[in-house]
Amino acid sequence: MSLKLFYAPGACSFVPHAMLEMAGVEFEPTMVKLHKGEQRNPDYLALNPRGQVPVLVDGDEVVTQIVAILLHLDAKLPMAGILPSAGVERSRAVQKLVWMNNTVHPTFTHVFMPEKFTDDAEAQKAIRAFGAARYREMLQEIEAMAQKAAPWMVGERPGALDAYALTLLRWGGYAGIDPTTLPATWGLVQRFAELPGVARAIERERLQLNVFKG
Amino acid sequence: MSLKLFYAPGACSFVPHAMLEMAGVEFEPTMVKLHKGEQRNPDYLALNPRGQVPVLVDGDEVVTQIVAILLHLDAKLPMAGILPSAGVERSRAVQKLVWMNNTVHPTFTHVFMPEKFTDDAEAQKAIRAFGAARYREMLQEIEAMAQKAAPWMVGERPGALDAYALTLLRWGGYAGIDPTTLPATWGLVQRFAELPGVARAIERERLQLNVFKG
Ligand SMILES: N[C@@H](CCC(=O)N[C@@H](CS)C(=O)NCC(=O)O)C(=O)O
Ligand SMILES: N[C@@H](CCC(=O)N[C@@H](CS)C(=O)NCC(=O)O)C(=O)O
Repeated sequence: MSLKLFYAPGACSFVPHAMLEMAGVEFEPTMVKLHKGEQRNPDYLALNPRGQVPVLVDGDEVVTQIVAILLHLDAKLPMAGILPSAGVERSRAVQKLVWMNNTVHPTFTHVFMPEKFTDDAEAQKAIRAFGAARYREMLQEIEAMAQKAAPWMVGERPGALDAYALTLLRWGGYAGIDPTTLPATWGLVQRFAELPGVARAIERERLQLNVFKG
Repeated sequence: MSLKLFYAPGACSFVPHAMLEMAGVEFEPTMVKLHKGEQRNPDYLALNPRGQVPVLVDGDEVVTQIVAILLHLDAKLPMAGILPSAGVERSRAVQKLVWMNNTVHPTFTHVFMPEKFTDDAEAQKAIRAFGAARYREMLQEIEAMAQKAAPWMVGERPGALDAYALTLLRWGGYAGIDPTTLPATWGLVQRFAELPGVARAIERERLQLNVFKG
Protein backbone atom coordinates (compact mmCIF):
# COMPACT_ATOMS: atom_id res chain seq x y z
CA MET A 1 0.00 0.00 0.00
CA SER A 2 1.56 3.30 -1.10
CA LEU A 3 -0.43 6.36 -0.08
CA LYS A 4 0.48 9.96 -0.74
CA LEU A 5 -1.53 13.00 0.35
CA PHE A 6 -1.09 16.45 -1.16
CA TYR A 7 -2.18 18.99 1.43
CA ALA A 8 -1.84 22.68 2.25
CA PRO A 9 -1.48 23.90 5.83
CA GLY A 10 -4.81 25.05 7.22
CA ALA A 11 -6.76 24.12 4.09
CA CYS A 12 -9.62 21.66 3.78
CA SER A 13 -7.06 18.94 3.12
CA PHE A 14 -6.74 18.80 6.92
CA VAL A 15 -9.79 16.51 6.95
CA PRO A 16 -8.19 13.56 5.09
CA HIS A 17 -4.83 14.45 6.65
CA ALA A 18 -6.21 13.98 10.17
CA MET A 19 -7.99 10.76 9.11
CA LEU A 20 -4.80 9.22 7.72
CA GLU A 21 -2.92 10.05 10.91
CA MET A 22 -5.80 8.82 13.05
CA ALA A 23 -5.86 5.53 11.11
CA GLY A 24 -2.19 5.10 11.90
CA VAL A 25 -1.27 4.05 8.36
CA GLU A 26 1.93 4.95 6.61
CA PHE A 27 1.55 7.69 4.02
CA GLU A 28 3.66 10.36 2.42
CA PRO A 29 2.41 13.85 3.25
CA THR A 30 3.34 16.31 0.50
CA MET A 31 2.93 20.01 1.09
CA VAL A 32 1.53 22.33 -1.59
CA LYS A 33 2.14 26.01 -0.84
CA LEU A 34 -1.07 27.67 -2.00
CA HIS A 35 0.18 31.20 -1.20
CA LYS A 36 3.08 30.57 -3.59
CA GLY A 37 0.70 29.29 -6.28
CA GLU A 38 2.22 25.80 -6.29
CA GLN A 39 -1.22 24.38 -7.06
CA ARG A 40 -0.84 25.90 -10.53
CA ASN A 41 2.57 24.33 -11.27
CA PRO A 42 2.42 22.13 -14.38
CA ASP A 43 3.33 19.01 -12.37
CA TYR A 44 0.53 19.60 -9.95
CA LEU A 45 -2.00 20.43 -12.66
CA ALA A 46 -1.08 17.15 -14.34
CA LEU A 47 -2.21 15.44 -11.13
CA ASN A 48 -5.26 17.62 -10.52
CA PRO A 49 -6.23 19.87 -13.44
CA ARG A 50 -8.49 21.86 -11.09
CA GLY A 51 -5.43 23.04 -9.14
CA GLN A 52 -6.73 22.29 -5.68
CA VAL A 53 -5.86 20.29 -2.61
CA PRO A 54 -6.47 17.65 -1.36
CA VAL A 55 -5.25 14.96 -3.73
CA LEU A 56 -4.77 11.37 -2.58
CA VAL A 57 -2.54 9.09 -4.63
CA ASP A 58 -3.15 5.44 -3.82
CA GLY A 59 -0.78 3.33 -5.90
CA ASP A 60 -1.67 4.23 -9.50
CA GLU A 61 -4.95 5.83 -8.57
CA VAL A 62 -5.42 9.59 -8.17
CA VAL A 63 -8.42 10.63 -6.08
CA THR A 64 -9.55 14.25 -5.71
CA GLN A 65 -12.49 15.71 -3.76
CA ILE A 66 -12.57 15.43 0.03
CA VAL A 67 -15.73 13.34 0.12
CA ALA A 68 -14.43 10.90 -2.50
CA ILE A 69 -11.08 10.63 -0.69
CA LEU A 70 -12.83 9.97 2.62
CA LEU A 71 -15.10 7.30 1.13
CA HIS A 72 -12.08 5.75 -0.63
CA LEU A 73 -10.11 5.64 2.63
CA ASP A 74 -13.12 4.39 4.55
CA ALA A 75 -13.51 1.45 2.16
CA LYS A 76 -9.79 0.71 2.39
CA LEU A 77 -9.41 1.21 6.16
CA PRO A 78 -12.78 0.17 7.58
CA MET A 79 -11.39 -0.07 11.12
CA ALA A 80 -10.35 3.59 11.21
CA GLY A 81 -13.84 4.87 11.98
CA ILE A 82 -13.77 7.64 9.38
CA LEU A 83 -17.54 7.18 9.04
CA PRO A 84 -19.97 4.85 10.82
CA SER A 85 -19.87 1.53 8.98
CA ALA A 86 -23.53 1.14 7.98
CA GLY A 87 -27.19 1.83 8.51
CA VAL A 88 -28.94 4.93 9.68
CA GLU A 89 -25.79 6.18 11.45
CA ARG A 90 -23.86 6.11 8.20
CA SER A 91 -26.56 7.88 6.17
CA ARG A 92 -26.85 10.60 8.82
CA ALA A 93 -23.09 11.10 8.93
CA VAL A 94 -22.76 11.24 5.13
CA GLN A 95 -25.59 13.78 5.05
CA LYS A 96 -23.74 16.07 7.45
CA LEU A 97 -20.43 15.52 5.70
CA VAL A 98 -21.70 16.44 2.25
CA TRP A 99 -23.54 19.48 3.64
CA MET A 100 -20.31 20.73 5.24
CA ASN A 101 -18.62 20.12 1.89
CA ASN A 102 -21.20 21.53 -0.53
CA THR A 103 -22.62 24.37 1.56
CA VAL A 104 -20.50 25.48 4.56
CA HIS A 105 -17.10 25.12 2.89
CA PRO A 106 -18.17 27.04 -0.28
CA THR A 107 -19.72 29.76 1.88
CA PHE A 108 -16.32 30.33 3.46
CA THR A 109 -14.84 30.53 -0.03
CA HIS A 110 -17.17 33.51 -0.65
CA VAL A 111 -15.63 35.24 2.37
CA PHE A 112 -12.02 34.27 1.71
CA MET A 113 -11.86 34.38 -2.10
CA PRO A 114 -14.80 36.45 -3.38
CA GLU A 115 -12.80 36.95 -6.59
CA LYS A 116 -13.90 33.41 -7.50
CA PHE A 117 -17.43 34.75 -8.03
CA THR A 118 -16.98 38.12 -9.75
CA ASP A 119 -14.27 40.44 -11.10
CA ASP A 120 -16.08 43.49 -9.77
CA ALA A 121 -14.41 44.89 -6.63
CA GLU A 122 -17.60 46.38 -5.16
CA ALA A 123 -19.53 43.18 -5.75
CA GLN A 124 -16.71 41.24 -4.06
CA LYS A 125 -17.16 43.35 -0.93
CA ALA A 126 -20.90 42.68 -0.95
CA ILE A 127 -20.35 38.94 -1.40
CA ARG A 128 -17.82 38.83 1.44
CA ALA A 129 -20.08 40.61 3.93
CA PHE A 130 -23.15 38.56 3.03
CA GLY A 131 -21.12 35.33 3.12
CA ALA A 132 -19.69 36.09 6.56
CA ALA A 133 -23.20 36.47 7.99
CA ARG A 134 -24.36 33.24 6.34
CA TYR A 135 -21.22 31.49 7.55
CA ARG A 136 -22.02 32.41 11.13
CA GLU A 137 -25.51 30.91 10.77
CA MET A 138 -24.01 27.71 9.43
CA LEU A 139 -21.53 27.47 12.29
CA GLN A 140 -24.56 27.79 14.56
CA GLU A 141 -26.02 24.72 12.84
CA ILE A 142 -22.77 22.91 13.54
CA GLU A 143 -22.96 24.15 17.13
CA ALA A 144 -26.37 22.48 17.48
CA MET A 145 -24.79 19.23 16.24
CA ALA A 146 -21.87 19.62 18.65
CA GLN A 147 -24.29 20.15 21.53
CA LYS A 148 -25.60 16.63 20.85
CA ALA A 149 -22.14 15.09 20.37
CA ALA A 150 -21.74 12.07 22.61
CA PRO A 151 -18.89 12.66 22.84
CA TRP A 152 -18.05 12.91 19.09
CA MET A 153 -20.18 14.06 16.16
CA VAL A 154 -21.37 10.54 15.29
CA GLY A 155 -21.22 9.07 18.79
CA GLU A 156 -18.52 6.98 20.36
CA ARG A 157 -15.79 7.35 17.77
CA PRO A 158 -14.04 10.43 16.45
CA GLY A 159 -14.05 10.70 12.67
CA ALA A 160 -14.40 12.82 9.56
CA LEU A 161 -17.15 15.11 10.89
CA ASP A 162 -15.04 16.16 13.87
CA ALA A 163 -12.13 16.95 11.58
CA TYR A 164 -14.33 19.01 9.24
CA ALA A 165 -15.85 20.83 12.23
CA LEU A 166 -12.33 21.73 13.36
CA THR A 167 -11.43 23.13 9.95
CA LEU A 168 -14.66 25.09 9.53
CA LEU A 169 -14.53 26.56 13.04
CA ARG A 170 -10.87 27.54 12.59
CA TRP A 171 -11.76 29.31 9.32
CA GLY A 172 -14.47 31.14 11.23
CA GLY A 173 -11.65 33.04 12.98
CA TYR A 174 -10.65 34.51 9.60
CA ALA A 175 -14.28 35.46 8.99
CA GLY A 176 -14.37 37.44 12.25
CA ILE A 177 -16.07 34.76 14.31
CA ASP A 178 -14.71 34.12 17.80
CA PRO A 179 -14.67 30.33 18.23
CA THR A 180 -15.31 30.60 21.96
CA THR A 181 -18.79 31.99 21.12
CA LEU A 182 -19.58 28.49 19.82
CA PRO A 183 -18.68 26.68 23.02
CA ALA A 184 -19.86 23.15 22.21
CA THR A 185 -17.98 23.12 18.91
CA TRP A 186 -14.96 24.80 20.45
CA GLY A 187 -14.87 22.18 23.23
CA LEU A 188 -15.22 19.31 20.75
CA VAL A 189 -12.52 20.73 18.49
CA GLN A 190 -10.08 21.16 21.35
CA ARG A 191 -10.66 17.59 22.55
CA PHE A 192 -10.31 16.29 19.00
CA ALA A 193 -7.06 18.19 18.50
CA GLU A 194 -5.53 16.32 21.45
CA LEU A 195 -5.99 12.84 19.99
CA PRO A 196 -2.49 11.59 19.19
CA GLY A 197 -3.00 11.14 15.42
CA VAL A 198 -4.82 14.43 15.06
CA ALA A 199 -2.13 16.18 17.08
CA ARG A 200 0.49 14.92 14.60
CA ALA A 201 -1.44 16.36 11.65
CA ILE A 202 -1.84 19.66 13.50
CA GLU A 203 1.85 19.79 14.26
CA ARG A 204 2.82 19.03 10.67
CA GLU A 205 0.55 21.84 9.44
CA ARG A 206 1.66 24.10 12.33
CA LEU A 207 -1.97 25.01 12.98
CA GLN A 208 -3.17 27.38 15.63
CA LEU A 209 -6.74 26.44 16.51
CA ASN A 210 -7.93 29.92 17.39
CA VAL A 211 -6.96 32.47 14.71
CA PHE A 212 -9.61 35.02 15.69
CA LYS A 213 -8.22 38.52 16.22
CA GLY A 214 -10.58 40.49 18.48
CA MET B 1 -39.90 -0.96 2.65
CA SER B 2 -41.72 2.34 2.50
CA LEU B 3 -39.96 4.99 0.44
CA LYS B 4 -41.14 8.53 -0.19
CA LEU B 5 -39.34 11.13 -2.29
CA PHE B 6 -40.05 14.85 -2.07
CA TYR B 7 -39.12 16.40 -5.39
CA ALA B 8 -39.70 19.52 -7.45
CA PRO B 9 -40.12 19.39 -11.22
CA GLY B 10 -36.85 20.23 -12.97
CA ALA B 11 -34.89 20.60 -9.73
CA CYS B 12 -31.85 18.61 -8.65
CA SER B 13 -34.21 16.11 -7.04
CA PHE B 14 -34.49 14.64 -10.53
CA VAL B 15 -31.28 12.70 -9.81
CA PRO B 16 -32.68 10.48 -7.01
CA HIS B 17 -36.09 10.53 -8.75
CA ALA B 18 -34.62 8.96 -11.89
CA MET B 19 -32.63 6.45 -9.81
CA LEU B 20 -35.72 5.27 -7.92
CA GLU B 21 -37.62 4.80 -11.18
CA MET B 22 -34.62 3.10 -12.80
CA ALA B 23 -34.36 0.72 -9.83
CA GLY B 24 -37.98 -0.22 -10.37
CA VAL B 25 -38.86 -0.04 -6.67
CA GLU B 26 -42.12 1.18 -5.28
CA PHE B 27 -41.98 4.67 -3.85
CA GLU B 28 -44.30 7.56 -3.24
CA PRO B 29 -43.29 10.63 -5.24
CA THR B 30 -44.44 13.82 -3.51
CA MET B 31 -44.29 17.11 -5.36
CA VAL B 32 -43.09 20.30 -3.67
CA LYS B 33 -43.96 23.45 -5.65
CA LEU B 34 -40.89 25.62 -5.18
CA HIS B 35 -42.38 28.55 -7.15
CA LYS B 36 -45.26 28.60 -4.64
CA GLY B 37 -42.81 28.50 -1.72
CA GLU B 38 -44.10 25.14 -0.47
CA GLN B 39 -40.54 24.30 0.69
CA ARG B 40 -41.11 26.92 3.43
CA ASN B 41 -44.40 25.47 4.71
CA PRO B 42 -44.12 24.50 8.40
CA ASP B 43 -44.77 20.82 7.62
CA TYR B 44 -42.00 20.73 5.09
CA LEU B 45 -39.57 22.63 7.31
CA ALA B 46 -40.26 20.08 10.05
CA LEU B 47 -38.98 17.46 7.62
CA ASN B 48 -36.07 19.49 6.23
CA PRO B 49 -35.33 22.69 8.17
CA ARG B 50 -33.19 23.91 5.26
CA GLY B 51 -36.30 24.09 3.06
CA GLN B 52 -34.91 22.28 0.06
CA VAL B 53 -35.60 19.28 -2.12
CA PRO B 54 -34.78 16.43 -2.37
CA VAL B 55 -35.82 14.64 0.80
CA LEU B 56 -36.03 10.86 0.99
CA VAL B 57 -38.10 9.28 3.73
CA ASP B 58 -37.22 5.63 4.23
CA GLY B 59 -39.45 4.21 6.94
CA ASP B 60 -38.68 6.36 9.99
CA GLU B 61 -35.51 7.78 8.51
CA VAL B 62 -35.31 11.19 6.82
CA VAL B 63 -32.38 11.65 4.47
CA THR B 64 -31.52 14.98 2.85
CA GLN B 65 -28.66 15.88 0.47
CA ILE B 66 -28.53 14.32 -2.99
CA VAL B 67 -25.22 12.55 -2.39
CA ALA B 68 -26.36 11.09 0.94
CA ILE B 69 -29.66 9.97 -0.62
CA LEU B 70 -27.84 8.31 -3.52
CA LEU B 71 -25.41 6.50 -1.21
CA HIS B 72 -28.30 5.44 1.00
CA LEU B 73 -30.23 4.06 -1.99
CA ASP B 74 -27.11 2.46 -3.40
CA ALA B 75 -26.54 0.57 -0.12
CA LYS B 76 -30.20 -0.48 -0.04
CA LEU B 77 -30.55 -1.35 -3.73
CA PRO B 78 -27.10 -2.57 -4.75
CA MET B 79 -28.41 -4.12 -7.98
CA ALA B 80 -29.75 -0.82 -9.31
CA GLY B 81 -26.34 0.37 -10.52
CA ILE B 82 -26.65 3.85 -9.07
CA LEU B 83 -22.85 3.82 -8.63
CA PRO B 84 -20.23 1.19 -9.51
CA SER B 85 -20.12 -1.27 -6.64
CA ALA B 86 -16.46 -1.03 -5.62
CA GLY B 87 -12.84 -0.30 -6.39
CA VAL B 88 -11.30 2.32 -8.61
CA GLU B 89 -14.50 2.64 -10.64
CA ARG B 90 -16.47 3.57 -7.55
CA SER B 91 -13.94 6.12 -6.30
CA ARG B 92 -13.81 7.76 -9.73
CA ALA B 93 -17.58 7.92 -9.96
CA VAL B 94 -17.97 9.34 -6.44
CA GLN B 95 -15.33 11.94 -7.28
CA LYS B 96 -17.33 13.13 -10.31
CA LEU B 97 -20.61 12.98 -8.43
CA VAL B 98 -19.44 15.14 -5.53
CA TRP B 99 -17.82 17.62 -7.92
CA MET B 100 -21.10 17.99 -9.80
CA ASN B 101 -22.80 18.47 -6.44
CA ASN B 102 -20.35 20.82 -4.68
CA THR B 103 -19.13 22.86 -7.67
CA VAL B 104 -21.27 22.68 -10.83
CA HIS B 105 -24.67 22.69 -9.10
CA PRO B 106 -23.77 25.67 -6.80
CA THR B 107 -22.40 27.57 -9.79
CA PHE B 108 -25.80 27.30 -11.43
CA THR B 109 -27.34 28.60 -8.22
CA HIS B 110 -25.25 31.77 -8.71
CA VAL B 111 -26.87 32.22 -12.12
CA PHE B 112 -30.41 31.27 -11.11
CA MET B 113 -30.61 32.69 -7.57
CA PRO B 114 -27.85 35.28 -7.13
CA GLU B 115 -29.90 36.73 -4.27
CA LYS B 116 -28.59 33.82 -2.20
CA PHE B 117 -25.16 35.52 -2.22
CA THR B 118 -25.88 39.23 -1.78
CA ASP B 119 -28.77 41.66 -1.28
CA ASP B 120 -27.17 44.19 -3.62
CA ALA B 121 -28.90 44.27 -7.03
CA GLU B 122 -25.80 45.39 -8.96
CA ALA B 123 -23.65 42.74 -7.31
CA GLN B 124 -26.30 40.14 -8.18
CA LYS B 125 -25.98 41.04 -11.86
CA ALA B 126 -22.20 40.70 -11.67
CA ILE B 127 -22.48 37.31 -9.93
CA ARG B 128 -24.96 36.06 -12.52
CA ALA B 129 -22.80 37.01 -15.51
CA PHE B 130 -19.60 35.63 -14.00
CA GLY B 131 -21.38 32.44 -12.92
CA ALA B 132 -22.84 31.85 -16.39
CA ALA B 133 -19.33 31.95 -17.92
CA ARG B 134 -17.96 29.59 -15.26
CA TYR B 135 -20.95 27.31 -15.74
CA ARG B 136 -20.19 26.98 -19.43
CA GLU B 137 -16.60 25.96 -18.61
CA MET B 138 -17.90 23.33 -16.22
CA LEU B 139 -20.31 21.93 -18.80
CA GLN B 140 -17.26 21.67 -21.08
CA GLU B 141 -15.61 19.49 -18.41
CA ILE B 142 -18.73 17.32 -18.39
CA GLU B 143 -18.59 17.26 -22.19
CA ALA B 144 -15.06 15.81 -21.96
CA MET B 145 -16.41 13.09 -19.65
CA ALA B 146 -19.32 12.41 -22.01
CA GLN B 147 -16.91 12.07 -24.93
CA LYS B 148 -15.35 9.12 -23.09
CA ALA B 149 -18.69 7.61 -22.04
CA ALA B 150 -18.86 3.96 -23.08
CA PRO B 151 -21.73 4.23 -23.47
CA TRP B 152 -22.62 5.70 -20.04
CA MET B 153 -20.62 7.96 -17.74
CA VAL B 154 -19.20 5.07 -15.70
CA GLY B 155 -19.19 2.47 -18.47
CA GLU B 156 -21.72 -0.22 -19.17
CA ARG B 157 -24.49 0.81 -16.83
CA PRO B 158 -26.47 4.02 -16.65
CA GLY B 159 -26.53 5.60 -13.20
CA ALA B 160 -26.38 8.68 -11.03
CA LEU B 161 -23.79 10.56 -13.12
CA ASP B 162 -25.93 10.35 -16.25
CA ALA B 163 -28.92 11.67 -14.31
CA TYR B 164 -26.91 14.57 -12.88
CA ALA B 165 -25.49 15.35 -16.33
CA LEU B 166 -29.04 15.54 -17.67
CA THR B 167 -30.09 17.97 -14.95
CA LEU B 168 -27.01 20.18 -15.28
CA LEU B 169 -27.21 20.32 -19.08
CA ARG B 170 -30.93 21.13 -18.93
CA TRP B 171 -30.21 23.98 -16.50
CA GLY B 172 -27.62 25.23 -18.98
CA GLY B 173 -30.51 26.18 -21.25
CA TYR B 174 -31.70 28.66 -18.59
CA ALA B 175 -28.14 30.02 -18.39
CA GLY B 176 -28.15 30.77 -22.13
CA ILE B 177 -26.25 27.65 -23.14
CA ASP B 178 -27.52 25.75 -26.18
CA PRO B 179 -27.28 22.03 -25.25
CA THR B 180 -26.60 21.05 -28.85
CA THR B 181 -23.25 22.88 -28.61
CA LEU B 182 -22.21 20.13 -26.17
CA PRO B 183 -22.94 17.25 -28.53
CA ALA B 184 -21.54 14.33 -26.53
CA THR B 185 -23.45 15.32 -23.41
CA TRP B 186 -26.58 16.12 -25.41
CA GLY B 187 -26.41 12.71 -27.09
CA LEU B 188 -25.90 10.93 -23.77
CA VAL B 189 -28.72 12.84 -22.12
CA GLN B 190 -31.16 12.06 -24.93
CA ARG B 191 -30.29 8.36 -24.81
CA PHE B 192 -30.60 8.35 -21.03
CA ALA B 193 -33.98 10.06 -21.19
CA GLU B 194 -35.33 7.18 -23.28
CA LEU B 195 -34.63 4.47 -20.70
CA PRO B 196 -38.05 3.32 -19.48
CA GLY B 197 -37.54 4.27 -15.80
CA VAL B 198 -35.99 7.60 -16.61
CA ALA B 199 -38.77 8.33 -19.08
CA ARG B 200 -41.31 7.81 -16.29
CA ALA B 201 -39.51 10.34 -14.05
CA ILE B 202 -39.33 12.81 -16.94
CA GLU B 203 -43.02 12.38 -17.65
CA ARG B 204 -43.98 12.86 -14.01
CA GLU B 205 -41.94 16.07 -13.85
CA ARG B 206 -43.17 17.10 -17.36
CA LEU B 207 -39.61 17.99 -18.33
CA GLN B 208 -38.56 19.36 -21.64
CA LEU B 209 -34.92 18.44 -22.20
CA ASN B 210 -33.98 21.48 -24.25
CA VAL B 211 -35.16 24.71 -22.61
CA PHE B 212 -32.70 26.96 -24.46
CA LYS B 213 -34.33 29.94 -26.14
CA GLY B 214 -32.12 31.17 -29.01
N1 LIG C 1 -14.54 20.60 -3.94
C1 LIG C 1 -13.19 20.43 -3.46
C2 LIG C 1 -12.73 21.74 -2.87
C3 LIG C 1 -11.28 21.76 -2.53
C4 LIG C 1 -10.83 23.16 -2.10
O1 LIG C 1 -11.67 24.04 -1.85
N2 LIG C 1 -9.50 23.33 -2.00
C5 LIG C 1 -8.93 24.62 -1.66
C6 LIG C 1 -8.30 24.65 -0.28
S1 LIG C 1 -9.51 24.51 1.02
C7 LIG C 1 -7.82 24.93 -2.65
O2 LIG C 1 -7.04 24.06 -3.02
N3 LIG C 1 -7.73 26.21 -3.08
C8 LIG C 1 -6.66 26.65 -3.90
C9 LIG C 1 -7.15 27.43 -5.07
O3 LIG C 1 -8.36 27.42 -5.32
O4 LIG C 1 -6.29 28.04 -5.72
C10 LIG C 1 -13.15 19.30 -2.43
O5 LIG C 1 -14.18 19.03 -1.82
O6 LIG C 1 -12.09 18.66 -2.27
N1 LIG D 1 -26.95 20.66 -1.09
C1 LIG D 1 -28.28 20.25 -1.45
C2 LIG D 1 -28.81 21.22 -2.45
C3 LIG D 1 -30.27 21.03 -2.76
C4 LIG D 1 -30.81 22.15 -3.63
O1 LIG D 1 -30.03 22.95 -4.20
N2 LIG D 1 -32.15 22.18 -3.78
C5 LIG D 1 -32.79 23.24 -4.52
C6 LIG D 1 -33.39 22.72 -5.82
S1 LIG D 1 -32.18 22.22 -7.01
C7 LIG D 1 -33.94 23.78 -3.70
O2 LIG D 1 -34.66 23.03 -3.04
N3 LIG D 1 -34.15 25.09 -3.74
C8 LIG D 1 -35.25 25.71 -3.13
C9 LIG D 1 -34.86 26.88 -2.30
O3 LIG D 1 -33.63 27.04 -2.08
O4 LIG D 1 -35.76 27.63 -1.90
C10 LIG D 1 -28.22 18.83 -2.02
O5 LIG D 1 -27.16 18.42 -2.51
O6 LIG D 1 -29.23 18.10 -1.93
